[in-house]
Amino acid sequence: MACREAASKTHDTASSLIVVGSIALDTVSTPGAHDRIGLGGSATYFSAAAGLLCCPEVIAVLGDDFDRTQLNFLVERGVDLSSVYTKQGKTFQWQGTYGDDLAEATTLRTDLNVFADFEPNLSDRQKNCDFLFLANIIPHLQLKVVEQAKAKFVAADTMNLWINTANADLKRVLSMIDMLVLNEAEARLLSEEKSIVAAAKRIQSFGPQTVVIKRGVYGAFMMHKDAIFSCPAFPTMETIDPTGCGDTFAGGLIGTLARHGEVNDETLREGIVVGTALASFTIEGYSLDGLKRATVESLRERYRAVEAMTKFGSFDL
Amino acid sequence: MACREAASKTHDTASSLIVVGSIALDTVSTPGAHDRIGLGGSATYFSAAAGLLCCPEVIAVLGDDFDRTQLNFLVERGVDLSSVYTKQGKTFQWQGTYGDDLAEATTLRTDLNVFADFEPNLSDRQKNCDFLFLANIIPHLQLKVVEQAKAKFVAADTMNLWINTANADLKRVLSMIDMLVLNEAEARLLSEEKSIVAAAKRIQSFGPQTVVIKRGVYGAFMMHKDAIFSCPAFPTMETIDPTGCGDTFAGGLIGTLARHGEVNDETLREGIVVGTALASFTIEGYSLDGLKRATVESLRERYRAVEAMTKFGSFDL
Repeated sequence: MACREAASKTHDTASSLIVVGSIALDTVSTPGAHDRIGLGGSATYFSAAAGLLCCPEVIAVLGDDFDRTQLNFLVERGVDLSSVYTKQGKTFQWQGTYGDDLAEATTLRTDLNVFADFEPNLSDRQKNCDFLFLANIIPHLQLKVVEQAKAKFVAADTMNLWINTANADLKRVLSMIDMLVLNEAEARLLSEEKSIVAAAKRIQSFGPQTVVIKRGVYGAFMMHKDAIFSCPAFPTMETIDPTGCGDTFAGGLIGTLARHGEVNDETLREGIVVGTALASFTIEGYSLDGLKRATVESLRERYRAVEAMTKFGSFDL
Repeated sequence: MACREAASKTHDTASSLIVVGSIALDTVSTPGAHDRIGLGGSATYFSAAAGLLCCPEVIAVLGDDFDRTQLNFLVERGVDLSSVYTKQGKTFQWQGTYGDDLAEATTLRTDLNVFADFEPNLSDRQKNCDFLFLANIIPHLQLKVVEQAKAKFVAADTMNLWINTANADLKRVLSMIDMLVLNEAEARLLSEEKSIVAAAKRIQSFGPQTVVIKRGVYGAFMMHKDAIFSCPAFPTMETIDPTGCGDTFAGGLIGTLARHGEVNDETLREGIVVGTALASFTIEGYSLDGLKRATVESLRERYRAVEAMTKFGSFDL
């Protein structure tokens, strides 16, 4: 199991990490494939990425139509699925489509199904986890989880829909978390600022002292306290399907934090580069196909490639 | 003179650098100012930037309406203007406007005036210069210059207009130069490729072994032989007027190459960071106001700021 390998190579025992999010069946159209059905969901991508770095635990709900053998690869990667419940009904479904530039998905259909009345209740052990990630779910639910938890470090994702329709709940979530991960258009919408620095500062004023902004092919930007970090995207030659890249990135980032058991400018930067490298595997295949192929070895190679494409010498004039 | 300071601090004597381009009167509208008239031109921005690093020489033409005292700051910076000729007639004029995001200029008017029959003839000394930059002028003129020159290293800029209307001439220029500097939309147009890596590789196949792609607020991307370098933009808090940022960037980049007298992956990367830092001064003021304020000292500070926002540790898993 990758997580055991990770734990054995880490100085301290890796900290506990819980993700609350969705496991879904996606129907995705890209320039290369029409209405392709496959495994999806924020918690799936997140834990598949984090499972290479630590032993994440998933809290999610499935319908009784779901074939759980689809998740075997997660178990093999060391992901704890004992809190993935099955309920009577259909699994959460999402349908989206991408334009020629494969930049942003347009949502065509969201059927919450068993996710509609999902009530994530944390056990005492889970409440005291070290790291907690609230994937992109309705802020009302994020709030329920964060109010129960006494985690050392809480991170969350969000989206334009919640910024527009559940702003007050979202702002309450923001006041209780340590890190927000969102994309650039969402950052502008939430902050009402145009420049990325101004946007990140404004979002910090809502609560989280770390703001990570995903910029697609332009990489990722972080403001942690007063420090800025900027990382380019890994230059993949083959872009197949970007679905799940954001959750993969977050899994790599927060998986790295949990692996180190410490959050500081250094572990955050390492985490962003790991997230960047792992997201490049996701984009190279449909559904989880690309990310399934990633190993600690191939992650290490891409990490080094990002190092090589960003390093430069000092200025001696 | 900045260039003397640069030369004295450089191990070797700085190499000679010539820029062939425009000195213009610009009329620019931004969200902050309507139809503001000021000094402009590719050779002006380029030499103002390069003048902090080496002693560039400008080949350009002015109309007899032009007040040459406007260029005194360039002379003070050590720029050689002895080949800036005055001809009867009006100086080249450009009028452009920016939208709210200050991303890209829309050209409203281009009056070539004395530039229309500009015939840059290089002296024997100039033909044998070390570094030559062909700013964004009609490819036919770039060709005339590059055919005369025996420079060690030739770089050029171009634009969508020439890609669309003078493609054959441009391709001939490309077959004779070492480096092309252009923006991302132009790179896509010229290469007919969507991904930046594929675009850069395709442009390399036209001739230049180094392709530098300017990405505005997303920084700069270079492909030199097989190596990729990516640099974020300097996070300016105040964006006043982006006119001239591209030429400032090129001046910082090629000025650095001339300062070192050597072109390799290391000097190119240093040059891109220097260009990035200098472009951030240009954007902070109208016309040349921001770049005039830049000093070797403040450039050094911003170079270090780019270092701080890009560095990260190794991956030890």
